[in-house]
Amino acid sequence: MANSPNCDLKSLSPLQLFERVTEQGEKVRALKAGKAPKDEIDAAVRMLLSLKLSYKTTTGQDYQAGLPPKDLVLINNGTTKEEDEDLVDPWNVQTSNAKGVDYDKLIVRFGSSKIDTDLINRIERATGQKPHHFLRRGIFFSHRDMDQVLDAYENKKPFFLYTGRGPSSQAMHVGHLIPFLFTKWLQEVFDVPLVIQLTDDEKYLWKDMTVEKAHEYARENAKDIIACGFDVNKTFIFSDLEYLGTSAGFYKNIVKVQKHVTFNQVKGIFGFTDSDCIGKISFPAIQAAPSFSSSFPQIFNGKENIQCLIPCAIDQDPYFRMTRDVAPRIGQPKPALLHSVFFPALQGAQTKMSASDPNSSIFLTDTPKQIKTKINKHAFSGGRDTIEEHRKYGGNCDVDVSFMYLTFFLEDDDRLEQLKQAYTSGELLTGELKKVLIETMQPLVAAHQERRKQVTDEIVKQFMTPRKLAFEF
Amino acid sequence: MANSPNCDLKSLSPLQLFERVTEQGEKVRALKAGKAPKDEIDAAVRMLLSLKLSYKTTTGQDYQAGLPPKDLVLINNGTTKEEDEDLVDPWNVQTSNAKGVDYDKLIVRFGSSKIDTDLINRIERATGQKPHHFLRRGIFFSHRDMDQVLDAYENKKPFFLYTGRGPSSQAMHVGHLIPFLFTKWLQEVFDVPLVIQLTDDEKYLWKDMTVEKAHEYARENAKDIIACGFDVNKTFIFSDLEYLGTSAGFYKNIVKVQKHVTFNQVKGIFGFTDSDCIGKISFPAIQAAPSFSSSFPQIFNGKENIQCLIPCAIDQDPYFRMTRDVAPRIGQPKPALLHSVFFPALQGAQTKMSASDPNSSIFLTDTPKQIKTKINKHAFSGGRDTIEEHRKYGGNCDVDVSFMYLTFFLEDDDRLEQLKQAYTSGELLTGELKKVLIETMQPLVAAHQERRKQVTDEIVKQFMTPRKLAFEF
Repeated sequence: MANSPNCDLKSLSPLQLFERVTEQGEKVRALKAGKAPKDEIDAAVRMLLSLKLSYKTTTGQDYQAGLPPKDLVLINNGTTKEEDEDLVDPWNVQTSNAKGVDYDKLIVRFGSSKIDTDLINRIERATGQKPHHFLRRGIFFSHRDMDQVLDAYENKKPFFLYTGRGPSSQAMHVGHLIPFLFTKWLQEVFDVPLVIQLTDDEKYLWKDMTVEKAHEYARENAKDIIACGFDVNKTFIFSDLEYLGTSAGFYKNIVKVQKHVTFNQVKGIFGFTDSDCIGKISFPAIQAAPSFSSSFPQIFNGKENIQCLIPCAIDQDPYFRMTRDVAPRIGQPKPALLHSVFFPALQGAQTKMSASDPNSSIFLTDTPKQIKTKINKHAFSGGRDTIEEHRKYGGNCDVDVSFMYLTFFLEDDDRLEQLKQAYTSGELLTGELKKVLIETMQPLVAAHQERRKQVTDEIVKQFMTPRKLAFEF
Repeated sequence: MANSPNCDLKSLSPLQLFERVTEQGEKVRALKAGKAPKDEIDAAVRMLLSLKLSYKTTTGQDYQAGLPPKDLVLINNGTTKEEDEDLVDPWNVQTSNAKGVDYDKLIVRFGSSKIDTDLINRIERATGQKPHHFLRRGIFFSHRDMDQVLDAYENKKPFFLYTGRGPSSQAMHVGHLIPFLFTKWLQEVFDVPLVIQLTDDEKYLWKDMTVEKAHEYARENAKDIIACGFDVNKTFIFSDLEYLGTSAGFYKNIVKVQKHVTFNQVKGIFGFTDSDCIGKISFPAIQAAPSFSSSFPQIFNGKENIQCLIPCAIDQDPYFRMTRDVAPRIGQPKPALLHSVFFPALQGAQTKMSASDPNSSIFLTDTPKQIKTKINKHAFSGGRDTIEEHRKYGGNCDVDVSFMYLTFFLEDDDRLEQLKQAYTSGELLTGELKKVLIETMQPLVAAHQERRKQVTDEIVKQFMTPRKLAFEF
């Protein structure tokens, strides 16, 4: 590598190198398209070749557009991940660490950027609002191109929000609310349109479920989402099974994405095999397409180039890495992303919560009594074995699930800090901490249930009807 | 194999065995579903196991539902076909024989049935109409389950017709009209609804073409199709790019098919590879879905069980073999099929005509002069090298393209027979036969052009608007 003009490339990870090659390729194309001076193009091409050589030396493979380096592939299909690495993809989250997934490592592996104090401060300056506690507490911890969204916002250029849910059952738990609560805050402080995708087609394809059942779950889940308090004039909620049949713009974008992604690529990104049905294989295009404003001609007046920002849990990132790879090739802007950590199961942070295990979580339909029982019985404690030891050595907030839940749901920063200190010092016992959580969750869930009761079928229909929103484009 | 209760199975081809296993499997399922007596079920299961054993002995592979035997796979992906076999799949038709593809062999290989005199007579009895010359002359030569369609028709049960076109360019040639002319006749004699699919999404995926261009070709091609004389009250023409965005019923059927077909299966049937885009891989479901009446709720009043009959060129059969395999698994009737031979290129019957080579065919936009020049210059002759030899030995109608074209377009049986005898005896010279073809094609194309001029954008819109047709369901 002594001949390389970029010796610092050696310090880059395969994924970082991959992204450098991709960026440089785009630069070369842009220069050629813009008929730049020949020497400028030549220099850019030389740099591209040099980057490709570095990539090959580092990974042992030729660079292939859209096909991320092998280490990423291995992580995602989960068959040969390194011993101490967490498994994170849209269907699995596994870690052996009681504190949960190592998110700093994930940022490096996924090639995203950390949401640091500078970015949080910039969001505060841009919106004039105190940043949401999900930002202040690192619950949304990683991003892609959020700075570009802020650049555009500061220049009065519009953007829109896109998030979603796979309606695998009627029962949603409090963890499912995280992206919606944060998205609602983003929508309020930035005042932008929001689209919410319910992937009932995905659930039909992956689960033993009829089309009708999946669609019914989508409409039921929509009620819980609406109960978070979204503004019907600014929000469009859609089920794939329903909306695909009412929007030619959406299908056109799907087929454009499908033309630009090979089976090799989805095999690498999602770990699909030859035995998977063709529905699963082509589905990633359906989750990709809402990133493009032309999928919603009724909202954006047919405009194609409006920037999209996607708040989601980090396990959904593979879909949007793929989307970002395809976007420039179909003449669309890359969506920006804000990634959240996973919401822990009551039993501990080693796994993501599951809607199919009623004890793994607090459900939005739980009674105050059920909430109390579940927390007392199942919430993994970071406390000591005996009261004496606890008083002497203190509890461990890093692994205590009650404390983790409070980080998500107790908005008062001072109170949270007091609890942390009291629990760590041993002054506060596990039972007392659980009591705080119970008293936090009971009214929160009851209020949600109260709001959900107000959500009639008519209101769901309003949210799910394709229409113009309260924005001009 | 001495232990086998079915020694005659030895004489069956792998594909015939495959179909026997599939049928027997369906029989077992039906018996179980109908709660048949135990000994009857047991006997059927024993037969199924015995058939599976024969299949394994013959092919060296385990039977896999929906995955036809290897010889078929090899034929379809075209990489290792046997020396003297024709290559026939939706994208390739190749034969080394000047007479064209060996259709009798194709019937055996594809496992379809020959349209014999009995069937043609039955169609005549059922409709009270003289069979179309495409039937009388073996141009539609193969079928699947046409007898079942006639059973249903005779019992006053409804069915519908489905055919289509891939709009790869604005230019259609006379060969493209064959399925439409025949479908029009079927519609008239049976008086049934007809749906015509324009796969503009397929052309976008396969060709170097924008979505907009593919859609434009679809609308232009619709004009030529309408000019064949279809009844707007009984016919719905749709472009995938347009209709998919207006019909939830269509997308639901697509996703149902996509759930029941694996990549392994489409790899076997269509020869797709890992480097193919996910759009191509999932496309077969989009050509399959119009076989089910629930894809057109506006026409069939949401009814799911209406029998479909598909007239098409035999190269489209792989799509519908797949559809017929999936249909019972998603609770739908299998579509029946009528297969046509290929229309020969002017240069000879070894290949299918190509819309991209203007001299390979007579186009619907050709002037009388162009038609004359093309036929005189390019139509492959079965005549002898000199007039003297021709008079002495006679011409060969089996390879003469002018005669083949007349078989398609000269409706008068007596005249055609006279021409055949005169040419074969040497009485009629090649130039004279060509003159007959020119005089047949010139008014036919001119009349088409005249009708096409009448097809306004407004009329296209009527045909392509989803709506109820003149039938009650």
